[in-house]
Formats: sequence, structure tokens, C-alpha cells
Amino acid sequence: MAHSDVLVFLLSLAVLLGVARLLGELAQRAGWPSVAGEIFAGVIVGKTLLGRFAPGAFSWLFPEGSPATMLNGYKTIAVVLLLVVAGLEIDLTIVRRSGKALVYTSVFSAAIPFALGWMTGLALPDSYLVDPSQRTFHTAFLAIALAISALPVITRTLLDLGLMKSDIGMLVLSAAVVNDIIGWICFSVLVRQMDPHNAGGGLLRSMGLTVGFLVVTLVVLRPVVDRWLRAMEPSPGEAAPTTRVLTMVTVLALMGAAATEALGIHAVFGGFVVGLAVGDSPRLREHTRHVLQEFVTSIFTPVFFATMALRYDFARSFDPVLVLIVVSIATVAKVAGSALGARLGGVGKREALAIGFGMNSRGAMEILLAVIALEAKIINERMFVALVVMAVVTSLISGPAMARLLRATPSPVQKLLRAGAIQLDLAATTRRDAISELTAALCTKLGRTGESSRFCDAVMAREDTAGTGVGDGVAFPHADADGLTEPILAFGRSKTGLDFDSPDGEPAKLIFLLITPRGDYQRSLHLLAGMARLLARQEVREKLLVARDSQGVVAALSDAKAAGQTPIPGSERSPTSRA
Amino acid sequence: MAHSDVLVFLLSLAVLLGVARLLGELAQRAGWPSVAGEIFAGVIVGKTLLGRFAPGAFSWLFPEGSPATMLNGYKTIAVVLLLVVAGLEIDLTIVRRSGKALVYTSVFSAAIPFALGWMTGLALPDSYLVDPSQRTFHTAFLAIALAISALPVITRTLLDLGLMKSDIGMLVLSAAVVNDIIGWICFSVLVRQMDPHNAGGGLLRSMGLTVGFLVVTLVVLRPVVDRWLRAMEPSPGEAAPTTRVLTMVTVLALMGAAATEALGIHAVFGGFVVGLAVGDSPRLREHTRHVLQEFVTSIFTPVFFATMALRYDFARSFDPVLVLIVVSIATVAKVAGSALGARLGGVGKREALAIGFGMNSRGAMEILLAVIALEAKIINERMFVALVVMAVVTSLISGPAMARLLRATPSPVQKLLRAGAIQLDLAATTRRDAISELTAALCTKLGRTGESSRFCDAVMAREDTAGTGVGDGVAFPHADADGLTEPILAFGRSKTGLDFDSPDGEPAKLIFLLITPRGDYQRSLHLLAGMARLLARQEVREKLLVARDSQGVVAALSDAKAAGQTPIPGSERSPTSRA
Repeated sequence: MAHSDVLVFLLSLAVLLGVARLLGELAQRAGWPSVAGEIFAGVIVGKTLLGRFAPGAFSWLFPEGSPATMLNGYKTIAVVLLLVVAGLEIDLTIVRRSGKALVYTSVFSAAIPFALGWMTGLALPDSYLVDPSQRTFHTAFLAIALAISALPVITRTLLDLGLMKSDIGMLVLSAAVVNDIIGWICFSVLVRQMDPHNAGGGLLRSMGLTVGFLVVTLVVLRPVVDRWLRAMEPSPGEAAPTTRVLTMVTVLALMGAAATEALGIHAVFGGFVVGLAVGDSPRLREHTRHVLQEFVTSIFTPVFFATMALRYDFARSFDPVLVLIVVSIATVAKVAGSALGARLGGVGKREALAIGFGMNSRGAMEILLAVIALEAKIINERMFVALVVMAVVTSLISGPAMARLLRATPSPVQKLLRAGAIQLDLAATTRRDAISELTAALCTKLGRTGESSRFCDAVMAREDTAGTGVGDGVAFPHADADGLTEPILAFGRSKTGLDFDSPDGEPAKLIFLLITPRGDYQRSLHLLAGMARLLARQEVREKLLVARDSQGVVAALSDAKAAGQTPIPGSERSPTSRA
Repeated sequence: MAHSDVLVFLLSLAVLLGVARLLGELAQRAGWPSVAGEIFAGVIVGKTLLGRFAPGAFSWLFPEGSPATMLNGYKTIAVVLLLVVAGLEIDLTIVRRSGKALVYTSVFSAAIPFALGWMTGLALPDSYLVDPSQRTFHTAFLAIALAISALPVITRTLLDLGLMKSDIGMLVLSAAVVNDIIGWICFSVLVRQMDPHNAGGGLLRSMGLTVGFLVVTLVVLRPVVDRWLRAMEPSPGEAAPTTRVLTMVTVLALMGAAATEALGIHAVFGGFVVGLAVGDSPRLREHTRHVLQEFVTSIFTPVFFATMALRYDFARSFDPVLVLIVVSIATVAKVAGSALGARLGGVGKREALAIGFGMNSRGAMEILLAVIALEAKIINERMFVALVVMAVVTSLISGPAMARLLRATPSPVQKLLRAGAIQLDLAATTRRDAISELTAALCTKLGRTGESSRFCDAVMAREDTAGTGVGDGVAFPHADADGLTEPILAFGRSKTGLDFDSPDGEPAKLIFLLITPRGDYQRSLHLLAGMARLLARQEVREKLLVARDSQGVVAALSDAKAAGQTPIPGSERSPTSRA
């Protein structure tokens, strides 16, 4: 390997990564998905701009030969790891707890765009195709491309709107998971069918191999991974086995990718399925997932998306008519299909439309599909650009549309609780200890260490005058205190229940500890009354009792009526609870 | 890029990474450095074993051509990132606070092995050389290879022995930093001199370029990076900019590596110097450093070390005589040189020898030098194997030898404090708040949340009978409590000092809070008396007042006499405090 090859490889990688991340950050600040900026980096340093205005610099920095091969190797690892992260993000359990609404929504949100995509493909003039004799592949691809949804974009939108663990959020998420998995299966089958080197043809064989790989990985590998992760769990006092788990995930992903590649399916499918299998284990630590995600986002993904646009001249390939057709058909089909499905599943009109716009975002996954299709010569550059624009536009309108339709704004209690502390398993066995535990957690979270005992004493003084249990297993210990400008709130859940001197004599399991600024009686009263109203509803209490994490607690406290919003049917007749 | 190339690349990477990490872990469990296992992975799946017993499988898995080029690209990134992590670990400030002992130790610990290495190089018969006409290069390399020290191994050894922030630990560390930097400069000059493509020859020119790159990076880039990191600091409530910083470090490292490569120096030097420059900024978060280190250790470093042995047959290259010569000369020269320097710097005999063994470990850095030298054809395979064995052996004996010489065992107070809580900046302004803050921190650390107020009350009850301030700014609040099997200890430092009713009327700045199992008066008394004896020494109090982190606090409490150990001169006449 010559010195200059290494030099060019290092430099080209630095340029791609640096420019892509910079533009990705700028895009994000402007409210766009970062992948848009990362792709644009390839337009700038690639054939489109650098190649046109400084062709010498372009061909020096991105020559064919060894540096290109090394860059390709890096890109391969990048895309496999990107798909592992995507797979890790999927929580299969939410799909298992399915219901009528999920079945209808996922079927219609995929089937209608698929059908419309197929029709579009059939109707497109020959000039839009790479090879008119291969029209079937092109048509099938277009149908799949319109049918998928972008899980990462949806996740971020739901988080932003505070809808993550709400019924509507769960429905959108689980339908998107189903779409995603089916979409990748279809796409993998298509890639295998397209492959001219593919010895064993036949649609059934391709489907068998793809679904077979999925099933084998999920049925055989998943429990094995779970057992390995359990074996790696540290004894108390030992360091977390993060590096071991990271290596295991990477090795499995590489092997999965190699296996799918060997089967004639694309390597990305292997990475994705391994991510699914590993992510399903409850023993995968949040820290490990986080380190992997941070690292892949920092140094791998941007390079992958930037290299995409490197060798194509995209200025020439922008076809406004095609872009308009693709964007509008994709949006209409997805919004209408998902909304129809949700309506049939019993969701209200407005909420069904919101679900439609949520499902409509295509994001990075669409772009990834398009890249692979472009490289496999299924689509041409014009269609590629149209799909990229479609992915960006649908992702951009998704959040604002949902917010507008749902008029979703977090209630004051949700806001306070998100800033405050949530203890799902109180260790305390007495009222005093519970209060001390909650004030300590609150002070730690707010960086007010040292004030815990002061708050604890104030709240206890109030308890001593009269217990704050209100019955139904709920208590609202509270006090006012100096040195606060805003109220602070903590929630604690006790398995056994604690005596808070309730009128009904029941021990309190749901404890809200509120401390308000000294003298702000008005607000204190208002907040306590609001919480009392909310907690008077049985379904709110039930959700709080079973919430598995802080997000679940916050979501349970959404005050639909207060936000001037029609009630979401799902929140009364939960579609996910009819397992 | 053909499908099968991608397949082979993915599979070979998975095999290398998987086997290397597995053997690395096994090596570590057996008390060996993990790099030994990682290298051995290359022996197993490489030419030595797989190549001999299943040559077909070997050449299928590791063919020449595209897969090899991709693997090379990955390896290049791996080694650049490995050196960045090595650079990040170096704390230049400890070198700046230098003293006589450091100057003597670093000079002699490098000069004597260098001289002996040089003599060995001159004395070696021609048959040991790659090219007898290039004997000067070989000799110079051997001199450098014997002179370096392995910072990561030294760091881990010092941490294990609880000596990290002790005077002796600081001396070993700072001398190793100086050796490391000078070693890399010399090696880079050597690589540049060796390069046949190198247009501008001349030793002075090579030295000028190498030192020039170092100085420019440290003087120009360092403050710029610091400013960027400041600009990236999140506003309160914003997420930490980990991914942005990770990208920045990676891009800078790639550019540094490309720059050194362009100058004819090896790319690793660029990575190392960028690591130095970035790591020096106090704004680099521990989390970022940690994520980078975890990820590089998990998926990059093992591949690098495993590929080393891939294409050589090491079974044939093991030359016992040469191994014996290299190991013994390296050890004698390094131990004697370092000990001599430390003695001249005023360190006691036993401690000087311990420093010698500390400096003697060569670890992964030596192996890295040897790989590069082997690839550059400076040394042959026999010498390579000898150097690898030397690196492993010197690293293995370093820890046990130091422990034996220093009879360093942590004092009971150190052990308790390491398990307990350390609050360097108490927020509290009253005795009660301080006690509450310390019990809260202790309970959080020990996972006993909910018991904090109980402990706090018990300690306050004791304070109410009589304050526990003992004078000189020290207080020992304590109590016994039910439900404990071992004593628990927290340390808090208050900037302003707090009233603990001391006999001398001084506010207490150093507060040790001890809670012992109910009724265990004997042990309670013993511990309190031991702490009182320790804190009666002014230098212990001073160290506690200036300690910058928990390790500094623990190190300050080393009870040299109690451990049956002669006093370390450095701890009375601190060599690092004579700036």
C-alpha cells in the first residue's frame, strides 16, 4: 500500500466527515433532518460542485483505485452499523401487545401507498427507467419505497410532542415497526431477485431465504444473545461490560451482514435483523446502546450519506415534475392509508389524520433504500433525487402537522414532572422516609444538594398538621419554601403503599410531592387542584401504577381536556391493552 | 465492487475482531495484558496456524486484492484512533509541574536503555538484520524501542496499587510521558529517514519537520481546540455535545495523520499529537473521552493487533536466544536507568527500584512500534517476535514488582473511602446541611436511598451531645446505626468551613462522616483514632485541601507507616511541588 494512498484515504475521510457533520448540524438547527445536510455535503465536495468547478482537486481527493476501495470498506461498515442502531431502536414488545387499531393501521398505511406506488410505476414513461425491460423491478421498488416509514424520525417527533408513551404514540410507533420490518423484507427479496449473479432464482426462494434468515435470527440467535448478555452481567462492584457487549454486537452484525450478503440479500438487512435480535434483550444496557449510537452517529453515518452524492451530478438530475409527482403521491397515499386504517380501528377523525402525518415521514431509511437501489441500477439518478426530496419533505411536515392536529401541549403537571424527579420504586417503608427519599431525589436532579433536609422538614411539618392522603391510594405531600422561583414536583410509587392518613384508610401508592415558592398560595392551590382532578380518573391511576419508566408516568398525566382537545378514543379504549 | 469482496471483507473483519477480543479477554483474566491475546488471535487465524493447517480457508478468508485493501483502510483508522486515545490519556500539566526528580528520572530512564540498545544493535551479527547495509537504522530503532515506556500499562498498574496520585505515582507517570513523547519524535524522524520516496533527506530536516509539527499543533491548534470546545459547551438543560466533540476529534486526528503522512512521518504520530492537543483542554468531558476509548477498544484496536500477525509465520521466527537477549537487556537497562535517575533526584532506594520496574513496562506501544518497523522493513520477523515477547514480559512483571517493593496496600481508611462517598465541594452552609448532604451522597453511592434521613438524624443526635470538630479544620461526625455490617465513610470538603464546635474555634473544612454497625464500639474507636492520627499530619491536611479529585483524596490518606513501609522521600519533600 503506497504512502500516498493512505494519505488520500485519510484526507478524503476527514473532508467527508467534517463537511457532512457541519452541514448536518446546520440542517438540524434550521429544523431539517440532519441527513439532508449530510447528503448535501456530498453534493458540495462531490461531482456536482467540486467536480464541476475544481475537477483537479476532486479527482485528487477522490481517485479511483485503492483509496476508493478503502472508502468503500468504511462505507460498508458504516451502513451495517447504522442499520444495527436502527434495529436496536425497535421495541418488539409494543408490537406483541397488538390490537385491532394496530392491525388496521399497519395494513392500510402500507397497502395503499404500495398500491399507488405500483400504479405510478406502471404509468411512468420509459424515459424514467434505467432499463425499460426491467420495468417490473422498478415498479416493485417504487411500491416498497412509498410504503415504508422512518422510525427514527417518528420517534423524535413523538418525543418532541410529549406523545411518546401515549396511546396515539404507541399506535404510530408499532405500526411503523411493522411497516419497517415488512418493507425491509420486501426490499431484500427484490435485491435478491435483481442480482444477475444470483444462481437460485425464483420469487418464492428469495422470500423463503429472507424470511428464513429473519426467523432463524429472532428464534435461534435472540435467546442465545440474551443468555450471553446475562453471562456478561457484572457482579456487584465490577465495571459494566460495555466494551465486551459492543464487540459482541459488532461481530454479530458483521456476521449477519456477511450471511445476508452470501444469501444474495443486501448486507444491510443482516445488520438490521441482528439489531432487532440484540435490542430485544432486556439485558442490553441503555449505556451500551447509547455509546454505540453516539459513536455511529459521530463518525460513521455522516460519511455514508456524504459518499452517496459523491459520484453523481445531482444538479442535472433534479426533475421538478417527477419530484412533484413522487412527493404528492407518497404523501397522499400514506396519510390517507394510515388515517383510513386508524379510523377503521376506532380512532377519532382528527387523531387518525395526525397518525397519517406521523406515518408519512420517510427520513434516512428512505434515502438508504434509494442509495442501494441507485447502486444496484434499479432506479436512475432522476428518481433518486426525487426520492431524496420526498424523504426530506415528508419528514419536515410530519411534526408540525401532528402538533397542529392534536394541539398537543404538555400540561403544567407534565412539565413540572419532566423537570423534577420520578422514583418508580420507592425503597421507603414509612411516610417520613418516602418524603426524605423524594426530596433527596429532587435535590439531586435539580443540583440543589444540601437543601434536601430543609425541604423534607418543611413537608413533614405540613404532614404533622394533617396527612395529605386523598384516598384511592394517592397522596399529595406539599409545602412552600424560601429560595424557589418555580414550583418543583417529584413523583414516587410505592409497591406496598404507605400510610398517609387517607380518609379511606387506604395506603398511598402514588405520591406527588410538591414544593412551591414561599407565599405563592394561588399557584400551589391551582396545581394541587389540577392534580387532584387528574388523579380522580381511574384510568390515569391505573396507567401510573403500571408505567414502566419515567416517560410512561409523564404520558399518563396528559390532560387531554385541559389542552382544549377532543378526547383520543385510544386513551379510553386503549387499543394496546386488548392483547 | 463485487458482492463477494464485501462478503469476504465483512467476514474477515468479524473473525479478526471476534477472536481477538475473546483471546484478549482471556489474557486479561489470566493477568496478562489484553494485547498479548489480541496478537495471538492473528497467530491462530493467520499464516502461522490457519495458514499451515487449512491453507485453503486462510487464502479464502484473507485474499489479496480488494478485501485486503479494505482491511488495510480499517487498520489505518484503527491505529490512528488508538494513538489519539493514547494522546488523550496524557496529562501534560503533570509534566509542567516538574522538579529535580522528574528531570533525572526521565533523562536516565531513557538515556541508559537507549545507549544499551544502541550497543546491542552494533553487536548483533549480520544474520539478524533485514539488510546489513542499513545497520544504522536497525541500531537506531533498537535504541528507541528499548527507551520507550508504556503509559497505559503504567496507568493501570498505579491505579491497581492505589498509587495513582501519590508522589511516586506522579513521578513515574510524568517521566513516562516525557519518554513517550521523545520516543515518538525519535521514531518519526527514523521513519522519515528510512523512506526511500522521501525527497528531502537530511537528519536535521526530518527532526525539524517532526518537532515543528509537534510545536505547531500544541501551540496553534491547542488553544483553537480549547476555544471550539468552549463554544460547544451546552447551555443549562441542553444535551452534552458528545457527538459533535467526537466528530471534531476524529476529523482533527485524520487530518493530523494525513499531515504527518504528507511530511513523510508516520500517520500514527499525527494521531498521537492531536490526542495530546485535544486532551490538554480542561473542557474535554470525561464522558466524551470515555465513549471514544470504549469504542476504540471494542471495535478498532483488537483488529489492528490481530492483523499484525496475520501474514507472518511466527512459529518459525521464535528465536529463544534473541528473545532472552532482548528481554534481559531491555529490563536491566530500564530498571537500572530509571532507578539511578530517581536516586539522583532524591528518592529512597526501595522506591527508586519500584519506579524502575514501573517504567520498565512496554505494553502495546512497543508492539505498535515493532509492527511499523516490521512493515517498513527496519526489522525482521525474528526481532519482531523478540520485541513482542519483551513487551509482554516487561508489562507482566511491572505490577507485582512494584507492589512487592512498596508493600503498598491501601489503609483501612482508604478502602472505606473508596467504597464510600467523596464530596469535594460541599454546598452546605450549616452543620446539619453538611451532614444531610454527606449522608445523602453516601446512601446514593451505596444504593441505600431512603435511609439517608435516618443516618442524618443519628449523626445529628451525636452532634447535639457534643460537636465532633477536633481542631485544625477537621471534624469527625459519626454515629452507629442498625442494618449495617460494615462501617461506611464519607468525606466532604467545605470551602468556607463550617462550625463543628471545635476546641480551637476554627471552622471545619475537612469533614469525615463515619457510620458504624450498631454496638461495634471497638472498630468505631479504632477507625476514629486512626483517622485522627492521620489528620494530625499537616501535609495530609494540605493535600486534602488541594486535592483535585477523589483519587487525590484517597491518595492523600495513604498511611505509609501503618503499612510497614519506609517513608517515601517524595511524600515529605514533594518533587512535584518545586515548580
